[in-house]
Amino acid sequence: MEVQIAVAKVKKYATSESGDSLEVVERPNGGLSVVLADGQSSGRGAKRVSNMVVRKVIALLAEGVRDGAAARAASDYLFTERQGKVQATLNILSADMQTRTLVVTRNNPAPVLIYTDGHLLSLDEDSTPVGIYRGTRPVVTEMPLKVGMTVVMFTDGIVHAGARYGRKMDAQALLQSLFTEAPGHAEGESAPPSAEVIAETLLQQALRLDENRPTDDISVVALQVIARDEEPRIRRMLVRLPL
Amino acid sequence: MEVQIAVAKVKKYATSESGDSLEVVERPNGGLSVVLADGQSSGRGAKRVSNMVVRKVIALLAEGVRDGAAARAASDYLFTERQGKVQATLNILSADMQTRTLVVTRNNPAPVLIYTDGHLLSLDEDSTPVGIYRGTRPVVTEMPLKVGMTVVMFTDGIVHAGARYGRKMDAQALLQSLFTEAPGHAEGESAPPSAEVIAETLLQQALRLDENRPTDDISVVALQVIARDEEPRIRRMLVRLPL
Repeated sequence: MEVQIAVAKVKKYATSESGDSLEVVERPNGGLSVVLADGQSSGRGAKRVSNMVVRKVIALLAEGVRDGAAARAASDYLFTERQGKVQATLNILSADMQTRTLVVTRNNPAPVLIYTDGHLLSLDEDSTPVGIYRGTRPVVTEMPLKVGMTVVMFTDGIVHAGARYGRKMDAQALLQSLFTEAPGHAEGESAPPSAEVIAETLLQQALRLDENRPTDDISVVALQVIARDEEPRIRRMLVRLPL
Repeated sequence: MEVQIAVAKVKKYATSESGDSLEVVERPNGGLSVVLADGQSSGRGAKRVSNMVVRKVIALLAEGVRDGAAARAASDYLFTERQGKVQATLNILSADMQTRTLVVTRNNPAPVLIYTDGHLLSLDEDSTPVGIYRGTRPVVTEMPLKVGMTVVMFTDGIVHAGARYGRKMDAQALLQSLFTEAPGHAEGESAPPSAEVIAETLLQQALRLDENRPTDDISVVALQVIARDEEPRIRRMLVRLPL
């Protein structure tokens, strides 16, 4: 079994930097976590906020703190540092090898989409960003890691893509079509689009709707569990950073 | 200009986990850093040590501390925590967008190889691992980021690959041959092998020399600066984790 994670990330048009922060970290008891935060507004100030939140979360995860507790701590921390005046959305997506589960932690109104057993689920229970209230809790969903499972999470740059031009991005429909049209699907085979294709397709659609000038920072993460086995087990990573 | 970083990582045969730790983190003033540590011995104990070192370094880098100072701090920290009884090798490889330089920080006898302007350089100045002496300093090399530049760093699993079988891994010769045999090279074009191909080739060669049962944890990192331009600028990441 192999977990594949693909990330595609772009900053709002004509800003100095993305207000979204994303880090992928190893879990001390095995597995990986992807931590994604979107700071209020955009540019340098937003970046500082999202960076602060992500840093806090990854430091706690590295100490073995569970995801939900790390999200609560990040909220209290931002609330204390900025007196409840600044918010950030926060998502944690973990492949936990200790429990062999997928853990989705949301402090974000945007849904997390999960394709499993031929069905597309939307984790869209009401969820509050971190930093503005005392005692903010995340919505945590945990399920067994299964081959074929695909999880997609994103910041609101995806949700609102095209809004300036009166267009609407429907991530759920796009994802559904990607799975339905996948080659091999008709024959009942398991040949889903790769995590890389999913992240790239969602980002490119958002860019089209935004006329290639993103009206907000956009980050997309796709995680997929595939059947691949190889000995010895090789861990791989590829990062591409435009300068 | 785009920076591409490829990582390939495998654990010693028949151990519970890799004693090498590697994290890629965003620099607060722009750019990325790859932090790689190899803890003394192997398995869980080595992992704890390398993880402690990497965590310390990335926490400091995230605060804007320069690479050399972060390496010194990590050494003093490990020396204090383990009373000078445990060592770890440490490498930091940074693409610093503030200075537009490549910064190579070594606390590792293993060389870092750099291919630039048609030449292969070996950064192999004497360098001491962190944690065993008071006041250990890293060897820091800084040079302007240039298109075509390729940097390769690794843990000693590469250096000693095949030793059990009386074979010798020559990473420098292998890298040289990859560049010499690259298609397009004969016509004087700039068509170097990708970071991904370089990391994978080095790891696969080490695995062959070790009869596919690595005698030590092996980690390889290749960083390459390429000419690619794309608007808007998209940051991408792909992680593959066997479970």
